[in-house]
Amino acid sequence: MSTTLRPGSEQAQLQTAVLGPTGYSGFELTRILLGHPRLKPPLLLRRDSENGPATLDEVYPHLSGNGSYPLEPFSWSRLEKSGAELLFLATPHELSRELMPEAIRRGLRVVDLSGAWRLKQAENRAVYKFTDADPAEAARLDEAAVYGCPELHRDRLRLAQLVANPGCYANSIILALAPVVFGKLVDSEYGIICDSKSGVSGAGKTPTAKTHFVEVADNLSAYSLFNHRHLGEMLEQLGLHNGQLIFTPHLLPIPRGILSTIYVRFRKEMTATELEACYRQFYCGCAWVRVFGTRMPQIQYSVRSNYCDIGFCLAPDGRRAVIVSCLDNLVKGAAGLAVQNLNVMYGWDEREGLQ
Amino acid sequence: MSTTLRPGSEQAQLQTAVLGPTGYSGFELTRILLGHPRLKPPLLLRRDSENGPATLDEVYPHLSGNGSYPLEPFSWSRLEKSGAELLFLATPHELSRELMPEAIRRGLRVVDLSGAWRLKQAENRAVYKFTDADPAEAARLDEAAVYGCPELHRDRLRLAQLVANPGCYANSIILALAPVVFGKLVDSEYGIICDSKSGVSGAGKTPTAKTHFVEVADNLSAYSLFNHRHLGEMLEQLGLHNGQLIFTPHLLPIPRGILSTIYVRFRKEMTATELEACYRQFYCGCAWVRVFGTRMPQIQYSVRSNYCDIGFCLAPDGRRAVIVSCLDNLVKGAAGLAVQNLNVMYGWDEREGLQ
Amino acid sequence: MSTTLRPGSEQAQLQTAVLGPTGYSGFELTRILLGHPRLKPPLLLRRDSENGPATLDEVYPHLSGNGSYPLEPFSWSRLEKSGAELLFLATPHELSRELMPEAIRRGLRVVDLSGAWRLKQAENRAVYKFTDADPAEAARLDEAAVYGCPELHRDRLRLAQLVANPGCYANSIILALAPVVFGKLVDSEYGIICDSKSGVSGAGKTPTAKTHFVEVADNLSAYSLFNHRHLGEMLEQLGLHNGQLIFTPHLLPIPRGILSTIYVRFRKEMTATELEACYRQFYCGCAWVRVFGTRMPQIQYSVRSNYCDIGFCLAPDGRRAVIVSCLDNLVKGAAGLAVQNLNVMYGWDEREGLQ
Amino acid sequence: MSTTLRPGSEQAQLQTAVLGPTGYSGFELTRILLGHPRLKPPLLLRRDSENGPATLDEVYPHLSGNGSYPLEPFSWSRLEKSGAELLFLATPHELSRELMPEAIRRGLRVVDLSGAWRLKQAENRAVYKFTDADPAEAARLDEAAVYGCPELHRDRLRLAQLVANPGCYANSIILALAPVVFGKLVDSEYGIICDSKSGVSGAGKTPTAKTHFVEVADNLSAYSLFNHRHLGEMLEQLGLHNGQLIFTPHLLPIPRGILSTIYVRFRKEMTATELEACYRQFYCGCAWVRVFGTRMPQIQYSVRSNYCDIGFCLAPDGRRAVIVSCLDNLVKGAAGLAVQNLNVMYGWDEREGLQ
Repeated sequence: MSTTLRPGSEQAQLQTAVLGPTGYSGFELTRILLGHPRLKPPLLLRRDSENGPATLDEVYPHLSGNGSYPLEPFSWSRLEKSGAELLFLATPHELSRELMPEAIRRGLRVVDLSGAWRLKQAENRAVYKFTDADPAEAARLDEAAVYGCPELHRDRLRLAQLVANPGCYANSIILALAPVVFGKLVDSEYGIICDSKSGVSGAGKTPTAKTHFVEVADNLSAYSLFNHRHLGEMLEQLGLHNGQLIFTPHLLPIPRGILSTIYVRFRKEMTATELEACYRQFYCGCAWVRVFGTRMPQIQYSVRSNYCDIGFCLAPDGRRAVIVSCLDNLVKGAAGLAVQNLNVMYGWDEREGLQ
Repeated sequence: MSTTLRPGSEQAQLQTAVLGPTGYSGFELTRILLGHPRLKPPLLLRRDSENGPATLDEVYPHLSGNGSYPLEPFSWSRLEKSGAELLFLATPHELSRELMPEAIRRGLRVVDLSGAWRLKQAENRAVYKFTDADPAEAARLDEAAVYGCPELHRDRLRLAQLVANPGCYANSIILALAPVVFGKLVDSEYGIICDSKSGVSGAGKTPTAKTHFVEVADNLSAYSLFNHRHLGEMLEQLGLHNGQLIFTPHLLPIPRGILSTIYVRFRKEMTATELEACYRQFYCGCAWVRVFGTRMPQIQYSVRSNYCDIGFCLAPDGRRAVIVSCLDNLVKGAAGLAVQNLNVMYGWDEREGLQ
Repeated sequence: MSTTLRPGSEQAQLQTAVLGPTGYSGFELTRILLGHPRLKPPLLLRRDSENGPATLDEVYPHLSGNGSYPLEPFSWSRLEKSGAELLFLATPHELSRELMPEAIRRGLRVVDLSGAWRLKQAENRAVYKFTDADPAEAARLDEAAVYGCPELHRDRLRLAQLVANPGCYANSIILALAPVVFGKLVDSEYGIICDSKSGVSGAGKTPTAKTHFVEVADNLSAYSLFNHRHLGEMLEQLGLHNGQLIFTPHLLPIPRGILSTIYVRFRKEMTATELEACYRQFYCGCAWVRVFGTRMPQIQYSVRSNYCDIGFCLAPDGRRAVIVSCLDNLVKGAAGLAVQNLNVMYGWDEREGLQ
Repeated sequence: MSTTLRPGSEQAQLQTAVLGPTGYSGFELTRILLGHPRLKPPLLLRRDSENGPATLDEVYPHLSGNGSYPLEPFSWSRLEKSGAELLFLATPHELSRELMPEAIRRGLRVVDLSGAWRLKQAENRAVYKFTDADPAEAARLDEAAVYGCPELHRDRLRLAQLVANPGCYANSIILALAPVVFGKLVDSEYGIICDSKSGVSGAGKTPTAKTHFVEVADNLSAYSLFNHRHLGEMLEQLGLHNGQLIFTPHLLPIPRGILSTIYVRFRKEMTATELEACYRQFYCGCAWVRVFGTRMPQIQYSVRSNYCDIGFCLAPDGRRAVIVSCLDNLVKGAAGLAVQNLNVMYGWDEREGLQ
């Protein structure tokens, strides 16, 4: 998918910048931005100030054939000179945490793809072990950050300066549960079980024993039981307290895509028609959620798109249901969602650049 | 894994036969039988009486290099002439249902790998829509059949004439739950959630849209929600009634292996030590169950072996747990288990031929 | 990648039709056509006149979310009523052979994705065993058909009524060899060896033993040695006679993508600089061939794009080289190339709708 | 495949040791040795003297369930104390090079799985850049080392003290070519083309960008063109000079297995019958080479076995042929072959422990 040719240059107005375009999310993001009709080509900044690759197409030959994409070392002055109004941070959370105060002071709008600014409650943030230079300032930013889920926070995102892009697992589960949790249909006394399976790109580009082909292929494994970092996001966004939601991630032998199988018990007997209506009503007008009803989504259907697909199956007693949601962890779970947030922040159609 | 050379021919005594050695389970079974020190080479019978392949190595060149393995058309007379005492049926359940009465009348011991004889309760059997020529005789066999799970029914298997080999999903879940269900630790009021993922060989060798490489690769899908055929086995074996256990199978893009992630709530607070002790005690002396304790099993660990691996993770509150079990659907979920049952039926060490 | 929203409806002019949009190539083609700025949404026709699926999104839920895509039974009258000027045949070669005469009589321009009309020489066509109702008419069409390789036949394609879209393997090899064969650099006395590896989608959507996940995964196999149907195309297009080119295809355990490794001997000693210049000159102005020079292309770089990537490595003696070409068998090897041909036929930029 | 239970302890005589049992080849080797009827359980030595894992089952839980397998830090004294007569080195070639002189001085027989001692000609060894402490001694060992290909050097292996186990690619190509090269059928003037494809375990267990799941999956790439380290072995063993054989390895998205597609031109016209006879005669009595004749081997047929499978297809002119060989890179390409060499060295049946 080459997206370097742009339909109408008269629309190209906004300058953006990407810090960290060589990781999997950063690269996916850059490809989307390069094809976005309302954007200038993004300024591409690498973290390692020296000796890094000179162009993005050198790292990803996928991109070659239509000019070159220079990578420049990050500096505030380079960023300022570019005239970038919006900065995407596709960086480790420690670096996002470190850079954000200065970015905000400089008046930049920032979409951060890391986990640095997603959590409001200190006890949930504890898992990240942040060490902030100025804790008071960090606390103000924690407070000001808007969780980048347009389906839930569209209005607040329009004016947000700091957008914390959701985690990939979290987004797949929050979108699947929001209609029935906020609709007060779920009996959370019984616990909500979220059994998620993700492709390997979610683990990042750095080679580790966990991502070695021979360890992943022909295999499946569960990990981070009861203590995955995305759990806090789910609880905060869904208004649940710890213990009401169990989350188990698994590593799938595929490059990308997440499927979450979610088990809920309802307060009252439901019909499939009522349940489907609940989802359709909740996501009415949402371009990037597809309600499948009783048809089951599969990872293949949404992969390489910005869709989150949601289907369900009611138990014969109408009191319990299995909800299945799928999304591409690099698109609706990261880069595509970041661009959807950009679109909301600038008042554009949420589909711009994502079709 | 070539197993055609046999260590000591003086031990080779028992003649067995396999009907259906060309399917995935039948082939796996044949390979194991060929290496079993207490068995003569099995008589290999194919269902299609005409025009089928002449040898098993023609279908599976994996097997070539050490003589040839003739496939003969099935007939009762051929079977009788061979002197086979024990017949393995690796056949569709309709055919197992049809052939069993005659096999039993002829005094054969039978291990049936299909779902034909696993269920005791008529309402659970309904899903198979059996049409028996002699319903009364079928009912007697339904009654007499022993569910082939040595870890639960070892004593009854010793004398059984008709052994119904468990379903692959069912075995992975029954073994994972038996210690805590029979130990009355589980609060089944809250429901037991079984989220299983299986490799494609479980779907059989006949090509279908569901098993096409392009449909399976880079994908994951849930199927047969609330109505998979193995559900009845789980309920009957665990003594649960419908509604107490939810089972969701998924199709993994791998050739073989099952991982089941199981969510339970306990009647009282448990420690990991207590829970591990419960499993170790229950499976004490069981060669083919490995209790992993709080280490998580992975599909790779047990694939191509007859092990069922079981691990768990307790929630911080000690009241809920995630139990993970893994096995190879073609070995501990089918062919290996069939041979383990054979070993029990003849009073041999359960490990014979399975190492 | 959803491409159903179209940038500017004022550009939508040409009506096209696709016969066979439910196969892998047909679906890929339809997705591209739906996003092409100069086209109306294509008329989608299915071969089976009755009882087929009613919409394409029913077959491919990937496509849902932005309206529905009706599938209609094929008939000439339906086609005429639609006003379609150009017909894509994504049909088996027998059907393409059967329908073409009438399509041509009706004045339609046709891009045929099958092997029906690619070959000029009767001895090469023999492998297909065509049975034409009117052999004389078929012979005229064989003569008139233009091989749809824009990099070789751009001028003739502009005016062509019948375009025979190249085979996927053939295109990967013809593009890799054309510069050095037509540049008279290759010593064909020594034979040209083409060792190709393709993903499974090239084998089509119909489930067979060959495409069963368990047979393909963790495997590699060579097939159709010395007699693959694409061999004739390569010989004819490159002006070689049988025996000068050996072609061995292999089935890779991946969904899509072809890599061809090609071994040639040169008439004289070459340098890498000279060889790269030869390729760059030959493909100057060709948007969809990327000359990698001495960097090796990989399947991942071109998959899901319309690029054919070509790299090479010279032997130390400068007399022999290994040329490696990669393309996506469903895009540059089928659907994308069909759209590139459409662009050429209508005088548009070859990149239209393919970015 | 668990192989820890041993059929007859009265046979257990020889003590062996493995240095490096935690790598892929070392682990495969250990599993085979544990099931070998003529061996005591091997002494398992790890290279990192401190802080390494305490047992092999800790690294590979596959192995658990039947006792534990302690890993001890390597030292000459520990080795001597164990009474080991034969040492397997599953170590990087630098370390094999360093340790070998002392091992030989101590009278140990050694099977080295690295590339350290395979090459006789200094110009071929240059690619490894060995830095020997005592070059003269190293030269004597280079001279004394026997290339561990029993099909070619069975007699010399019986008495060898230092066996250099062949490279996985090299073995697949040497075995495929030996009958026709030594039979003087091949016209090497035309060059022999060897196009090989290997699974990822051949690249070792250390995580690198090259072995990251996301980089390998859905991909294929050629690498090390004209300069792979195994080229020298092929030339030396086949008696060819550089330029007569071109070798191109590719990285397959599978865990294990090699398929080599080899293109040769014969000095005279051959029939398939003659060619098959040539192979059958050459490998008569060889337990671990399966001559497939005109049936094509596939990776699946030989994977997890010690077989090398060889098939071929003659061109219609009878002057050229494509030879296809398959083997498991970790078994017949490494660990299984090492045990086959052990069997030859001790005068045992070559099949011992490998069935």
